[in-house]
Amino acid sequence: MKNLLSILILLLSMTLFSQVEKIEPPFWWTEMHNPELQLMVYGKDIAQYDVAFSNTIQITDVQKTENPNYLFVTINTKDISPGTYELQFSKDNKILETRSYELKSRRENSALRKGFDSSDLIYLIMPDRFANGNPDIDSTEDTLEKVNREELSGRHGGDIQGIINHLDYLDDLGVTAIWSTPLLEDNEPIYSYHTYAQSDYYKIDPRFGTNEDYKRLASEMHKRDMKLLMDYVTNHWGSKHWMIQDLPSKDWIHYWENGENGFQRSSYRMTTQFDSNASEADKEACMNGWFDTTMPDINQKNPLVLRYMVQNAIWWVEFADLDGFRVDTYSYNDKDGIAKWTKAIMDEYPNFNIAGEVWMHNQAQMAYWQKDSKIGAIDNYNSHLPTVMDFTLHDAIMVMFSEDEQGWDKGMLRAYENFVNDFLYPDINNMFVFAGNHDTNRINEIYGSDVNTYKMIMTLIATVRGIPQVYYGDELGMLGNKDLKGDGDIRRDFPGGWEGDPMNAFTTEGRTAEQTEYFEFSKKVFNWRKSKSVIHTGKTMQFVPEDNVYVYFRYNTDDKVMIVINNNPEAQTLNLKRFGEMIGTATNGKEILSEERISLEESLTIDGKTSMIIEF
Amino acid sequence: MKNLLSILILLLSMTLFSQVEKIEPPFWWTEMHNPELQLMVYGKDIAQYDVAFSNTIQITDVQKTENPNYLFVTINTKDISPGTYELQFSKDNKILETRSYELKSRRENSALRKGFDSSDLIYLIMPDRFANGNPDIDSTEDTLEKVNREELSGRHGGDIQGIINHLDYLDDLGVTAIWSTPLLEDNEPIYSYHTYAQSDYYKIDPRFGTNEDYKRLASEMHKRDMKLLMDYVTNHWGSKHWMIQDLPSKDWIHYWENGENGFQRSSYRMTTQFDSNASEADKEACMNGWFDTTMPDINQKNPLVLRYMVQNAIWWVEFADLDGFRVDTYSYNDKDGIAKWTKAIMDEYPNFNIAGEVWMHNQAQMAYWQKDSKIGAIDNYNSHLPTVMDFTLHDAIMVMFSEDEQGWDKGMLRAYENFVNDFLYPDINNMFVFAGNHDTNRINEIYGSDVNTYKMIMTLIATVRGIPQVYYGDELGMLGNKDLKGDGDIRRDFPGGWEGDPMNAFTTEGRTAEQTEYFEFSKKVFNWRKSKSVIHTGKTMQFVPEDNVYVYFRYNTDDKVMIVINNNPEAQTLNLKRFGEMIGTATNGKEILSEERISLEESLTIDGKTSMIIEF
Repeated sequence: MKNLLSILILLLSMTLFSQVEKIEPPFWWTEMHNPELQLMVYGKDIAQYDVAFSNTIQITDVQKTENPNYLFVTINTKDISPGTYELQFSKDNKILETRSYELKSRRENSALRKGFDSSDLIYLIMPDRFANGNPDIDSTEDTLEKVNREELSGRHGGDIQGIINHLDYLDDLGVTAIWSTPLLEDNEPIYSYHTYAQSDYYKIDPRFGTNEDYKRLASEMHKRDMKLLMDYVTNHWGSKHWMIQDLPSKDWIHYWENGENGFQRSSYRMTTQFDSNASEADKEACMNGWFDTTMPDINQKNPLVLRYMVQNAIWWVEFADLDGFRVDTYSYNDKDGIAKWTKAIMDEYPNFNIAGEVWMHNQAQMAYWQKDSKIGAIDNYNSHLPTVMDFTLHDAIMVMFSEDEQGWDKGMLRAYENFVNDFLYPDINNMFVFAGNHDTNRINEIYGSDVNTYKMIMTLIATVRGIPQVYYGDELGMLGNKDLKGDGDIRRDFPGGWEGDPMNAFTTEGRTAEQTEYFEFSKKVFNWRKSKSVIHTGKTMQFVPEDNVYVYFRYNTDDKVMIVINNNPEAQTLNLKRFGEMIGTATNGKEILSEERISLEESLTIDGKTSMIIEF
Repeated sequence: MKNLLSILILLLSMTLFSQVEKIEPPFWWTEMHNPELQLMVYGKDIAQYDVAFSNTIQITDVQKTENPNYLFVTINTKDISPGTYELQFSKDNKILETRSYELKSRRENSALRKGFDSSDLIYLIMPDRFANGNPDIDSTEDTLEKVNREELSGRHGGDIQGIINHLDYLDDLGVTAIWSTPLLEDNEPIYSYHTYAQSDYYKIDPRFGTNEDYKRLASEMHKRDMKLLMDYVTNHWGSKHWMIQDLPSKDWIHYWENGENGFQRSSYRMTTQFDSNASEADKEACMNGWFDTTMPDINQKNPLVLRYMVQNAIWWVEFADLDGFRVDTYSYNDKDGIAKWTKAIMDEYPNFNIAGEVWMHNQAQMAYWQKDSKIGAIDNYNSHLPTVMDFTLHDAIMVMFSEDEQGWDKGMLRAYENFVNDFLYPDINNMFVFAGNHDTNRINEIYGSDVNTYKMIMTLIATVRGIPQVYYGDELGMLGNKDLKGDGDIRRDFPGGWEGDPMNAFTTEGRTAEQTEYFEFSKKVFNWRKSKSVIHTGKTMQFVPEDNVYVYFRYNTDDKVMIVINNNPEAQTLNLKRFGEMIGTATNGKEILSEERISLEESLTIDGKTSMIIEF
């Protein structure tokens, strides 16, 4: 009778007086490397409540902030069995509310999951623009911006199901990993499709699908031996995030007193992160400034913030079974905060991989950000970030193929000069190499839809050290010019991704002759690369380009590949003696593009604006 | 009687059968840090002779090369008293020749001599073009090229006496150190005036004066508290060097079998020195290639060569009482060889200074070459070179003052961006900062004789970290364009350096009004700098330039200086709040150019194309 009564009271309190609106993370796992877990409890005046677990779990710390609607409850999960535990909220020693909290078992070998690496080829997708697998969710009741495919910067309806539907296309192309731009809820009223202003860090945007859909995407990819990278945004949240609307503390974000709603645009001077001559004012103007008006800048110096984001990231790895992160605007974060974030994740998953966007134009400055960097060490800094992006190679790729004259540093010399600085990087295989992404002009636009140039570029991307990353649609010659028409133009819809599209480039028969040439070349090189460990992890030897011809070798003890990129419009004949230390006694090799055998004695003639990949 | 006979025989053998043509170094000193001395003995078939000292000195090693005309005799001078010792050459146990060899006492405190440093302002002179102090030696019998002042690339007659004659001018200008381009004999038949193709490493070119004149130059400078830097060339010798004419061994130089007289031009790709992807072929093409046809590339891997050059350099320090070296084409040398050379000299003179020409366009690459570089350490390299040259700042200076638009990286942002990378250098005070040298276009030519731009440039050079270096004549607005007229044009004669010159800018009354404006500004800033230790060794704080105005501070615990360079053609008013962390509670400061007091409260207005130096 007494029990029945308490159950009744409990039920009443839960329904009538429910105080707790959210607990995050919504659930967790046992046997994690770090047994500590900090629960954020949100609810009207929740800070007035006492909190305890009804059973074995010990609460080790409870923190309150200046906002009474938050409680941060730390528990220790060490030696706790998987199961559901009751979290009790009481006042004046009366339990007024009880919430279940689940600790799940982890997947087998979850901790030792292997992240993406240089054996992969990563395909970058903007999901809103790739394929619409479920038109029913193009707009939803609980999100502000509705679908409008006519608008270049509007939502077009692409979704997770659209990606799942075309995994076979990507597998066929030779893709082994997908980096999708963010999929978490972005509830901005306009321009939400890019999803970098996220409003809920524990929820897939319903216009893309559900959390379960995302998990299913990973699972479908793993069936095909493909890896999934989540695009993670630590630097800023969306202005519509529920916590931004009711800040736990003012210092949760960087609030600029003189700005409208706390806004001041970042100076974007990332160099202030290491400039020993920088003023505090300039450091703050970069790091604490906002990336954009809708993106309040998050304060990673606040330990509660940092913990929230560490746990959130780990939650997604465990929940969705991820293979890596790509971290947005990595070098705009508080540098110590982001290093702790990165280390916490890598400590949890030592074989995982995380790539940071460090968009700089100087190799030493980029190398600063890579794990165990000797350059970072000058400044006593270690980001713990395994992978950085080779933006200086991208700088070169954008201009060098239209440079006929070489001079001292033009044409293919730009690629050569990039690799000259490889010694500055602590891990040269952990670099994204790319000819474009969602923020840069389409490479096929830059080079006027010249398929020959595309082939040279993809030869380079697929054969230099690092992890090749291809932007969706480049493999079909897709165009786009952000300078003329804005970002939306470099994020056009993939042809065939929408029911009723006039053409469907996902299928062989749906491609034009031109698209077929782009696609088939890409497919050949990407698939060849899959099994070439000498390309994945071999050393590089490069030769100073002459007459706009760049020759380099990838080699290890078992294997050698000679790559020749002739950016000269005229055919060139190379005296092979110059490359004797690499060619050695080899007399011929197999050119994998033409599938012909090539003599490696005496000389080699290569057509203008052409590349060769010769294995021997 | 027996004694008399032996003296007679000795005299006969010395006169009639003198076998020994040269011994180098011609003399040496006792109590050196390194007591070992290697004498190079040169003479017809000298290798057939036995060699011994008649008295206390022990010969520890004798080396022969493939050329019988050389002997390399190593002795140990430890505990040997100053004096003259007899070196005996014998054959079949008969002494056939005896040569005196002197070991001198060192100057007091020679070992602890203090080299140039950031308290200095260095003035670079091309002696052939500065002043003709002794017309009698404009041409000499024993040198091939004769004076021809009409010829831009000919010898004009400037000499050491010319420099000595104008030390008071330089002292008045505020110069505290002179770097003169090389003065050792260069016996090329044409284009010898620049003197980088030297034919005798132990002899001042007779057209410049004598070894004693050079010593006198140093002595006259020291009287004025000025320092003398010798321009040392380790990378190549002149084709007319007597040893090149009769090589001790073929591997004394890099002899290219396929080239004419062993010549193959260097690829100048200095990046092969550290590029972990470089081929051996490309490394050799840079390092072993010749700088020019008349400059055989010296092989610093050969220990005899290296020893010769170490001792020669030390010899000049001791003999002439030098305060530093500037080393030509430092980064073209064999990198291990040049590191040993540098270390040997610095071991001998721990407080000395050596500046290396590392003409690169990337801070990390330049920082590689500085002593104890963390970047060099990535490659297990330590050059031991104390000072490098800030060529990237020079790159910026050459273009930024004509850039009105700022954008992301134009105008004064180029200077700012240079200093952003200061953290890469192990010793930021040991950098030459300069607006030009004998190899670059004249700064006043680049900026169309705009004295306002000159003033901004000299403000920068004289107030940023490092060691300012000024090129002769820039202080008068001298012009010269190497792209149009060749190197000779940036090395025009200093007006007034020659008897009968139509004007004499060495004197106040001899200067035009325009020259006076250049000179007086330079004199004011350079002399002010002399006593400002906060400029010599203070820290820097810089602020991101806005509207093409660059503001930075030099500061230490005692002193602060605010520098404002307004490269905007319009006057600008700065809100001083932005600089609060530096200005602190100061209310005003003294502007040293106008000599007026300036308020540091609220705002500061500065005229277009103007600089201010405010001490407070």
